[in-house]
Amino acid sequence: MQEATLPSGQNVIERLRRLVESRRFTGFITAVILFNAVTLGLETWSYAMEVAGGLLVAIDRIVLAIFVFEMIAKLLVYRQAFFRSGWNIFDLTIVGIALVPAAGPLTVLRALRILRVLRLLSVVPQMRSVVAALIGAIPGMGSIAAVMSLIFYVGSVLATKLFGAAFPDWFGSIGASAYSLFQIMTLESWSMGIVRPVMEVYPWAWLFFVPFILITTFAVLNLVVAVIVNSMQTLHEAEQKEEREAERQIVHEETAALTGEVRAMRQELSEIKALLGAKA
Amino acid sequence: MQEATLPSGQNVIERLRRLVESRRFTGFITAVILFNAVTLGLETWSYAMEVAGGLLVAIDRIVLAIFVFEMIAKLLVYRQAFFRSGWNIFDLTIVGIALVPAAGPLTVLRALRILRVLRLLSVVPQMRSVVAALIGAIPGMGSIAAVMSLIFYVGSVLATKLFGAAFPDWFGSIGASAYSLFQIMTLESWSMGIVRPVMEVYPWAWLFFVPFILITTFAVLNLVVAVIVNSMQTLHEAEQKEEREAERQIVHEETAALTGEVRAMRQELSEIKALLGAKA
Amino acid sequence: MQEATLPSGQNVIERLRRLVESRRFTGFITAVILFNAVTLGLETWSYAMEVAGGLLVAIDRIVLAIFVFEMIAKLLVYRQAFFRSGWNIFDLTIVGIALVPAAGPLTVLRALRILRVLRLLSVVPQMRSVVAALIGAIPGMGSIAAVMSLIFYVGSVLATKLFGAAFPDWFGSIGASAYSLFQIMTLESWSMGIVRPVMEVYPWAWLFFVPFILITTFAVLNLVVAVIVNSMQTLHEAEQKEEREAERQIVHEETAALTGEVRAMRQELSEIKALLGAKA
Amino acid sequence: MQEATLPSGQNVIERLRRLVESRRFTGFITAVILFNAVTLGLETWSYAMEVAGGLLVAIDRIVLAIFVFEMIAKLLVYRQAFFRSGWNIFDLTIVGIALVPAAGPLTVLRALRILRVLRLLSVVPQMRSVVAALIGAIPGMGSIAAVMSLIFYVGSVLATKLFGAAFPDWFGSIGASAYSLFQIMTLESWSMGIVRPVMEVYPWAWLFFVPFILITTFAVLNLVVAVIVNSMQTLHEAEQKEEREAERQIVHEETAALTGEVRAMRQELSEIKALLGAKA
Repeated sequence: MQEATLPSGQNVIERLRRLVESRRFTGFITAVILFNAVTLGLETWSYAMEVAGGLLVAIDRIVLAIFVFEMIAKLLVYRQAFFRSGWNIFDLTIVGIALVPAAGPLTVLRALRILRVLRLLSVVPQMRSVVAALIGAIPGMGSIAAVMSLIFYVGSVLATKLFGAAFPDWFGSIGASAYSLFQIMTLESWSMGIVRPVMEVYPWAWLFFVPFILITTFAVLNLVVAVIVNSMQTLHEAEQKEEREAERQIVHEETAALTGEVRAMRQELSEIKALLGAKA
Repeated sequence: MQEATLPSGQNVIERLRRLVESRRFTGFITAVILFNAVTLGLETWSYAMEVAGGLLVAIDRIVLAIFVFEMIAKLLVYRQAFFRSGWNIFDLTIVGIALVPAAGPLTVLRALRILRVLRLLSVVPQMRSVVAALIGAIPGMGSIAAVMSLIFYVGSVLATKLFGAAFPDWFGSIGASAYSLFQIMTLESWSMGIVRPVMEVYPWAWLFFVPFILITTFAVLNLVVAVIVNSMQTLHEAEQKEEREAERQIVHEETAALTGEVRAMRQELSEIKALLGAKA
Repeated sequence: MQEATLPSGQNVIERLRRLVESRRFTGFITAVILFNAVTLGLETWSYAMEVAGGLLVAIDRIVLAIFVFEMIAKLLVYRQAFFRSGWNIFDLTIVGIALVPAAGPLTVLRALRILRVLRLLSVVPQMRSVVAALIGAIPGMGSIAAVMSLIFYVGSVLATKLFGAAFPDWFGSIGASAYSLFQIMTLESWSMGIVRPVMEVYPWAWLFFVPFILITTFAVLNLVVAVIVNSMQTLHEAEQKEEREAERQIVHEETAALTGEVRAMRQELSEIKALLGAKA
Repeated sequence: MQEATLPSGQNVIERLRRLVESRRFTGFITAVILFNAVTLGLETWSYAMEVAGGLLVAIDRIVLAIFVFEMIAKLLVYRQAFFRSGWNIFDLTIVGIALVPAAGPLTVLRALRILRVLRLLSVVPQMRSVVAALIGAIPGMGSIAAVMSLIFYVGSVLATKLFGAAFPDWFGSIGASAYSLFQIMTLESWSMGIVRPVMEVYPWAWLFFVPFILITTFAVLNLVVAVIVNSMQTLHEAEQKEEREAERQIVHEETAALTGEVRAMRQELSEIKALLGAKA
């Protein structure tokens, strides 16, 4: 590509664009992702690794090469516009992870290769629209989420100060407290696992935990309600336009007879006027 | 039946049709299912088996014979059309299970006989409509379910790679990880039972599990919202037709007086024209 | 009362009616219930029993006497009509429990006296309407509840047959299985507490339990949706009447000018006709 | 301030009002709260306390002084009107807590200083509106909450009487029972942790606990539904006004042509009348 003269360089990019935007290419990438999903799954199976470990690793390299080619092609075609789509950045990040030399904390980075399968979310249109809808529901929850973060921060500091000394595992630091309070908010073992033991040392601990549960579950409830109401409203607005059109239609049809009558009458009036004019 | 001449064979099938489609027959089958539900229940009670085990087994055989006769009758009557209804296939499968010779894994197949009681779902119209409604709610959840399956697969492979070595019982294979992640998604003992022990070995494990919980519960929430919104919409559409009819009625009634007035006026105009014409 | 002559007997009943239906009497009964709630609460406190046990027991007898008088008065006043109201039967049952001689299983019947406090539900109008609304939401859930009962019965028999032998505490009988399946449906310790131990004996047990969880939670979800949609519909119907009235009003007002115009025109027409008639 | 003469005293208050109501001051207070949130957080970190403990304590005193000044300023400016806003009382209480000499139960009161961070809820408008919305959802739940309190009280007394003797830790007093029933209502370890052990002593205990769970979860469900329906209704009412305006517009536009026609006709009629009048 570097050796191509300018016009033929543009030719190459034009060809790349046609390739990258073709249905076949998208279908091919989807197939590669699905195939890679299977091979990455097989890598967790020690028997498969013994029998065909080398093959699986080789496939993985080829798949990575295909993805790298795809990314480079898209970057060449779209240039700055590439970065305007969140999906492209998502794809690039996921492919990028695999290119980082996995030296020290090797296992973790190697494990993250499976995230490539998430590229299906950006490649398959139906999944893309589901994810877009899920992300679209987030802004409506923003302000409640901010209030909940505040409650969590205050709750964590408070729990650390109150119970940290006696229960360092659960409330030893703000981080530990935040995790424990998250667990309590999900109601997992909140009483038998956490609050009853704490109450044996601090009998009034329920005065902190029971209101915390009531407030956070009530906030979560309102978050859920916000999502439901939001969905309904979106639906409603779409319907309303249609409904008004139908209404206009109904009024129009119902008054049509009347308009016809009035027009006929006006015709007659004109005739009368003509008659009178003729006589005058 | 085999010996019947062709016309009388058709006679037999016509009689069978009348039998199979009669209310009495459906009522009889319903009664047999309910009776079988009780006897199958009694079979789990060792005292009942001691006292009347032979009787219970005999009843079970008779019931099975009745069901087999019903299936054969329906197959003879409806032929290919029989397989067009999902309910018929459901019935046939359930009855068929009982006919498989329960040799090796005997207990399991014998135990599955109780599934026959599920035939109530297809025989009682009210239950049938509930099940139809439940199944009808599934397609609306399809694309979210696909996204969740993807998240589960990626999560399972990741968890197996990250925690499989240290916790083979929970994350030793993709299957084990998927089960554990399902448990975590239901919030059952996720922290005290799974994540806290894992965090003792991998202190950063919460970076995997907490986002997993947030994402999956958010997806489930959106699934619930989809079902609610879907129900509302179905209801709304039914109402809308009615509403438009009412609207048309209102506009019609309100303009009726006006139309009357205008018609009367036109009548008068005609008279005037006649008067003028007479004079001319 | 028995000695009263017939007219004076009717007088007594008329007086009773006025008493029973007076606001004061209802207020008095409400106060007695609240007071009784406190004294019954104090009876659980051993210190209060030591200090004022005799007094508490005496109060309880007086309260019971008041309730018995109330019931007899209402029975005399309303006769058969008394039994037409579910609330009256509720009151009578609760008061009746206290009159059964608590001989053998003494503690249980004595403990049930606290149920009297539930009479507040029938005496305070606001609570009465909440309970009526809650009960009103039940019929809409009837058919889903029937399907769930069927699933529970089939599931219980199946679990008993499959796992009863190895886990008699959890699945030893249909009753034990139904309780365990209810626990699993509420997701309480379903995995760590029940299914993981079962899977150690029967590795394929998840094939029974995971679908059971999915089906029952999906059914519960649809039950919740039914309650929400039902509430919305009730609300919507009330609104719709109002809306149609408003619609009629709008059409009426908007066509009023037109009607006025038409009427004025007709007036002019009449004048023209009169003019023409005069000329003829 | 005390030395100021009356007119200059009013001047001072006028200046204070301008200060207190200025955007800058609100911004400054918000910044102080956020800064204090960080320093209070750092106080839980023993390393930070070792390195800069004195500084953190000094900062805390300065922050408190700023808050006290703010409160005094607002009290001087608004006088009685200060207490009409719930937010002001909220702020005053939180600042007031820090002024109570923390002598005996020192740790608890010192720990409560973090509650100051909750002042963000009253200072940041977006959070204020979220909290107002959350509080606004409470009245609609009032009567169901009253019924639930009654059920909890009756349930607690009953559980204390029935199971208190054998399980003093869980059901020893009304308070202990209420806490345990709250835990059971949240479904946390209700079966494995509480009911199964109780059933070993009282095999019929499930007759109390299972209905309790069904009733309370059903009541909570209805509470959730009430919040959803309430939100929808508020939304719907706002829409309805708009919708009626649109409806009026549609009817108006659709009949406009007709009205024009009729007006033109009336014009012609007038002309005819004039012609006839002229002839007469």
